[in-house]
Amino acid sequence: MNNTQTKQTNHPHIVIVGGGFGGLYAAKSLKDAPVKVTLIDKRNFHLFQPLLYQVATGTLSPADIASPLRVILSKHKNTQVLLDKVVDIDPNAKKVFLENREDLDYDALIVATGVSHHYFGNDQWQNDAPGLKTVEDALEMRRRIYMAFEAAEKEPDPAKRKALLTFVVVGGGPTGVELAGAIAEIAHESVKDDFRDIDTTQARVLLFEGMERILPPYPEECSADAQKALEDLGVDVQTQTLVTNIADNAVTYRQGDDTNTVDAHTILWAAGVRASFMGKVLADRTEVELDRAGRVVVESDLSIKNYGDIFVIGDLANFNHQGDRPLPGVAPVAMKEGEYVADLLVKRIQGKAVGQFTYSDFGSMAVIGQNKAVANLGFAKLSGFVAWVIWIFAHIYYLIEFDNKLVVMIQWAWNYITLGRGARLITEKPSLQLEIESPKKPEEATVKTKETVSV
Amino acid sequence: MNNTQTKQTNHPHIVIVGGGFGGLYAAKSLKDAPVKVTLIDKRNFHLFQPLLYQVATGTLSPADIASPLRVILSKHKNTQVLLDKVVDIDPNAKKVFLENREDLDYDALIVATGVSHHYFGNDQWQNDAPGLKTVEDALEMRRRIYMAFEAAEKEPDPAKRKALLTFVVVGGGPTGVELAGAIAEIAHESVKDDFRDIDTTQARVLLFEGMERILPPYPEECSADAQKALEDLGVDVQTQTLVTNIADNAVTYRQGDDTNTVDAHTILWAAGVRASFMGKVLADRTEVELDRAGRVVVESDLSIKNYGDIFVIGDLANFNHQGDRPLPGVAPVAMKEGEYVADLLVKRIQGKAVGQFTYSDFGSMAVIGQNKAVANLGFAKLSGFVAWVIWIFAHIYYLIEFDNKLVVMIQWAWNYITLGRGARLITEKPSLQLEIESPKKPEEATVKTKETVSV
Repeated sequence: MNNTQTKQTNHPHIVIVGGGFGGLYAAKSLKDAPVKVTLIDKRNFHLFQPLLYQVATGTLSPADIASPLRVILSKHKNTQVLLDKVVDIDPNAKKVFLENREDLDYDALIVATGVSHHYFGNDQWQNDAPGLKTVEDALEMRRRIYMAFEAAEKEPDPAKRKALLTFVVVGGGPTGVELAGAIAEIAHESVKDDFRDIDTTQARVLLFEGMERILPPYPEECSADAQKALEDLGVDVQTQTLVTNIADNAVTYRQGDDTNTVDAHTILWAAGVRASFMGKVLADRTEVELDRAGRVVVESDLSIKNYGDIFVIGDLANFNHQGDRPLPGVAPVAMKEGEYVADLLVKRIQGKAVGQFTYSDFGSMAVIGQNKAVANLGFAKLSGFVAWVIWIFAHIYYLIEFDNKLVVMIQWAWNYITLGRGARLITEKPSLQLEIESPKKPEEATVKTKETVSV
Repeated sequence: MNNTQTKQTNHPHIVIVGGGFGGLYAAKSLKDAPVKVTLIDKRNFHLFQPLLYQVATGTLSPADIASPLRVILSKHKNTQVLLDKVVDIDPNAKKVFLENREDLDYDALIVATGVSHHYFGNDQWQNDAPGLKTVEDALEMRRRIYMAFEAAEKEPDPAKRKALLTFVVVGGGPTGVELAGAIAEIAHESVKDDFRDIDTTQARVLLFEGMERILPPYPEECSADAQKALEDLGVDVQTQTLVTNIADNAVTYRQGDDTNTVDAHTILWAAGVRASFMGKVLADRTEVELDRAGRVVVESDLSIKNYGDIFVIGDLANFNHQGDRPLPGVAPVAMKEGEYVADLLVKRIQGKAVGQFTYSDFGSMAVIGQNKAVANLGFAKLSGFVAWVIWIFAHIYYLIEFDNKLVVMIQWAWNYITLGRGARLITEKPSLQLEIESPKKPEEATVKTKETVSV
């Protein structure tokens, strides 16, 4: 009974694992191609991850930045979406093994499963300093940020109250910069009239970065502009600062030869990423090389060594055939890679060859607070309001392309005008990390708790 | 250190427990009164519960229908919001005992903690047939509804697939009618092009009602119109149907002398309510009478017998001084009761008396599908599109009053035009029912799991 509609064709079967920017753009580009496409994701939605920090800080709701994959691909009659998890592959038999469904045979396999947090060997920090990759992560961050003010309002002890009003963001990349700016704005603007026993403008927001400047991959003047803008918002930016321990609501950090500890009830992790599980599967089955972060080192056409029918794209790929370091793990790279592989596969059917993948960098941006940003467009480095306008238009463009999320833009415009954070609901703790196993038989469904955490 | 700002006055202290419609309207009405107000709620937001079914069915996000209490009351300088839980009261010493904070002394106490689900002595049904009272309930319902289609898409066994595509709503009141209509529309419209191996228009939606017609408190012609509209949407309405058992993904029900069982993977409970915990506290401490559902029987001024300084309003109150049965547990009654008690307390300070509470019924409404409703306005009984327009304007009016949620209206208009359900995210299971204990000391915070459930 399975695949009744899609198996009727004898078209080559392209299996895409992961519905992020890379996998989704590959699928979108194959819409009218003479192929059968199966897109597998363990979630039922595509997440617009660049705006996830806005969910974490209570400006947007999860549904504002997520679109059901089935809706996006509803008109792709050659495409089936499966809500499932790939557990293994056999690259010689060309098979993908799923957790809850019979195996799939593929003619080409595109792996785009991305990355997760990396605590540099200190996984025990995870509960104290959650990262930001999933909708559940964002709701957990939101809960912690707003609960800190609530707990401070109740706390009579001044030292404990101070710790409750201290926020540490670890990592000065775009996510860390965006989070720190937003939290400073929450404390100093959004909630300042809402409490009676505490003065939220006394809250401290610390941003720790190990390198000598924040936004290290950006040009130096962008970093300086971003630091200035954050400091104007009240963020205490500490560079050349290495976190050596996180425990008991305190962060220990080293600056040169000095080691200090700051009591902070809310610690957020934006410092590192590690390849997802599929990287290891590919290495085990194909002996492809992984880099130190576990990412898959790909050939110049994004395939993997000795397996011209397996491609790795997006954050999971280490593409080192252009420039002096691998392409960055950002959405535009993933999208271009997805489009490239789709094009390559269609041309291959037609007996045509394509050149190696090349990426034109249209720049990178990070937003700081409500209406400032830094942008490195290559030919120009911008900061302040102009950069923010460019940033917001770039995001409008992509959001609308997906799902006509015009409403999000109106919501946003409204929030920016009013400095409102209407989505600051403290909901029940989602970060128990429930893994819902979609069962073969409904009555055997189980819920597994991966870990339990205490706040 | 506590209450530094609010304790400076010698104004009478009014403590309100519960930030639903009743408690919030009492607080709003006391804005400029010479009183000190403390509003206590265990959540940080007011929930616009009449629209909760739209969150459950993926049209709206939680933040669209919830507003932070601190924001709503931010300009009320005489009012403090506490995120806490009342564990007991002492009506003679006039004290309220909180879980995480020192006791509060009150001059007047307003209890408005509402109701929760009632399984008529069958609490074991709760996991199989969740109810709809909280944001977490709604997200859990949403998860179950959309996961049912996902599981059916994977299921090769026709009988199991049929069970996965069978939805039973128990209870034909407004919530049950609204849920059943929305689920039928999801199956027959919203998702019909999204799957490849199942035909979602074959899904069955059953609505079970014990009385002889749905919407029993409405006039007969409203009930008939609603049933017709539901049937047009494809809902199988079964009246005079008593559910006798829910277990193992099946509902057993009795109709006259016949007993039948239907296999259904998704069973939703909209059949009964029971008073919240504070009802029992009041009965234990004041010997006030409770009705069969545990609601507090109040005097004609909404105070309780022998305690003229304790008031019970909203769904928790049984007000039987008007008409031949208690006032219904709906938002307009709660709002009017909140306003009445606020007015009574202000007048009492001024040495003036007020008459007993009376409620003018402006009608009741239930929506069926995207653009139909039934309305009983007393002087007129309407159904269809006209009733729906009235329904939506009534809701716009209240939503905007709270929080300028114009955006919600635009979102909604957009959804109605496109039949879209952009919020159909399946997120991690919230119904583990985590109880977050806000601790006295931050480092002692614990997370307690009330129950674990398997789907």
